[in-house]
Amino acid sequence: MEERIDEIGFSGYRLIQRSKDFCYGIDAVLLAAFAGVRQGGRVCDLGTGTGIIPLIMRHKTEAAEFWGVELQKEFADLAVRTMKLNRLEETIHILHSDVRDAAQILGFQSFDTVVANPPYVKKGCGLVGERSAKTLARHESSAGFSDFAQAAADLLKDRGDFYVIHREFRLAELIFCCTRIGLEPKELRMVAPKRGQRPNLVLLHCVKSGGQGLSVLPELAVYQEDGTYTQEILEFYERVPAAAAEQDDK
Amino acid sequence: MEERIDEIGFSGYRLIQRSKDFCYGIDAVLLAAFAGVRQGGRVCDLGTGTGIIPLIMRHKTEAAEFWGVELQKEFADLAVRTMKLNRLEETIHILHSDVRDAAQILGFQSFDTVVANPPYVKKGCGLVGERSAKTLARHESSAGFSDFAQAAADLLKDRGDFYVIHREFRLAELIFCCTRIGLEPKELRMVAPKRGQRPNLVLLHCVKSGGQGLSVLPELAVYQEDGTYTQEILEFYERVPAAAAEQDDK
Repeated sequence: MEERIDEIGFSGYRLIQRSKDFCYGIDAVLLAAFAGVRQGGRVCDLGTGTGIIPLIMRHKTEAAEFWGVELQKEFADLAVRTMKLNRLEETIHILHSDVRDAAQILGFQSFDTVVANPPYVKKGCGLVGERSAKTLARHESSAGFSDFAQAAADLLKDRGDFYVIHREFRLAELIFCCTRIGLEPKELRMVAPKRGQRPNLVLLHCVKSGGQGLSVLPELAVYQEDGTYTQEILEFYERVPAAAAEQDDK
Repeated sequence: MEERIDEIGFSGYRLIQRSKDFCYGIDAVLLAAFAGVRQGGRVCDLGTGTGIIPLIMRHKTEAAEFWGVELQKEFADLAVRTMKLNRLEETIHILHSDVRDAAQILGFQSFDTVVANPPYVKKGCGLVGERSAKTLARHESSAGFSDFAQAAADLLKDRGDFYVIHREFRLAELIFCCTRIGLEPKELRMVAPKRGQRPNLVLLHCVKSGGQGLSVLPELAVYQEDGTYTQEILEFYERVPAAAAEQDDK
């Protein structure tokens, strides 16, 4: 399988990606910018793929320890090699596991923050051909969103934070699933390609056992009218070279 | 109690309002513009107040019959007089009742569309002094949102539509309450004072026994940068004189 190593522009970290599969996209950058974590906190990324989210969060936050949980063996191995390449194997750990088993292995109520960029296409929906790595990463072939939410609820300490990015058409399901199991939605941010267009992504922050009351943040626009990134997006990327920033293939 | 009669600019209808209570605001206009109803349909407005929403919807749609349910006797009486004033007493009926009793009285599964602009402040929250008409209309002194949702679920035929406008901080609760009782969220529209600001109202459309999958519409901005209404808002008002349109006091 052909691989490539990309310089991702955060602390000069390098990321191993597979050319035939999709490469990391803007959603990982949005989630990493949205997610907060206290100094010294423990962070778990459910469905970590190449490990891009813990990598960016390691750069942006003062968290002490990260775990990335990945079901696909090839991706988990690749993420392990990426962390070694960056000498981060003591800080970012990769667990090859179904998210449904994560709490059993890593410990119930042992994390301050859980993040997830889950497969966008619902189980049983969409045209699923061969079970390629790309298909598994994009489709809920195994765990569905409610499994991700349950894993987050199990892994988090009381008052811990769950940050998720998902497609806009799943928002009602996200809110329902999270609320039902005690992950109270506290912040919501819609992401639209441009101002005035339909949002196509949502960022949701839930707090385990949090009180009711949602804060809706100003909509985030990705592109300006002329097709270049908005100032806010450029800040998320810390002005990473445009070529790397535009790999938005998920 | 001092009253006034306002020309509201829709079909030349006139509305009786009480000067000491709040007058109808932009939220009623937004909801009436958002709500769809099939030709010849039956519409119920839960917590109708002065009857403003059925009045605007009578003008904008081809619905055959409206019921406005209002708990406060003074408002119910006033709404009855408004409908007589406009010779609409055969089309817009007012029921003086708690929304929790509405289906028992009007019939289960007998409506095509239910709309609601419920009290914005949660039961037990906010500074509630005297139980004035204004307080009751703004605060959940009696029925809470879950009661409104349950009433809608009871009143609606299968696949019937529920349209609600509410404050943005209640959105998670709206989605959770509706989903739990089979009112599936199908369309969501955020309303922001201006582009790039935090949304402060949400328009939600649920379908009874509808399939999963939410359509998020482009954000609605109320004001342009210069403080005048956006084109879309002007269209909702059908260019009603600015003085009447700016009574946004709820």
